[in-house]
Amino acid sequence: MEKKEGNENVVFIGSKPFMNYITGVVMQFTTKNRDEVIVKARGKWISRAVDVVEAARKKFLKDKNLRIKNVLIDSAEMETDDGKKMNVSSIEITLGK
Amino acid sequence: MEKKEGNENVVFIGSKPFMNYITGVVMQFTTKNRDEVIVKARGKWISRAVDVVEAARKKFLKDKNLRIKNVLIDSAEMETDDGKKMNVSSIEITLGK
Repeated sequence: MEKKEGNENVVFIGSKPFMNYITGVVMQFTTKNRDEVIVKARGKWISRAVDVVEAARKKFLKDKNLRIKNVLIDSAEMETDDGKKMNVSSIEITLGK
Repeated sequence: MEKKEGNENVVFIGSKPFMNYITGVVMQFTTKNRDEVIVKARGKWISRAVDVVEAARKKFLKDKNLRIKNVLIDSAEMETDDGKKMNVSSIEITLGK
């Protein structure tokens, strides 16, 4: 589902249906047997990243007793299509056993 | 600006103009001379809480070299007006000297 750049235990949250991301996280811990998954998002998708992590942890993977091991927030300056500079926030949530 | 419940070093992010929250955070560190401010948000406002913290830290209070001391994420079951139960995510970001 999220295989680019070799970061196979990373799920990057965006505009796809919510359940796609849940499935992505669940598969990492089940079929791929990972100990940790990193959920990343930028800008307005940050809220959704928290929703995905919480739903995975408390509902879909409840029996695994996963915990939030780390939360990083940051921001970077980016240029818009019309050349304006703006800061875009980001989050990285590490969910693990 | 945010004085309810005696939690005077808490800024709760919602639908007001972005700069209101920046002013709230800045005043805590300047006129109120706090060492720490906790920025809280729920649901869709979580992304904005990260934006506020990042703008305060990197732009408006840049000279203070504030750092993100802790980030907590959680969720709680809530009931909607029509009696449906849903999970609402939350974030608490501690910004400090």
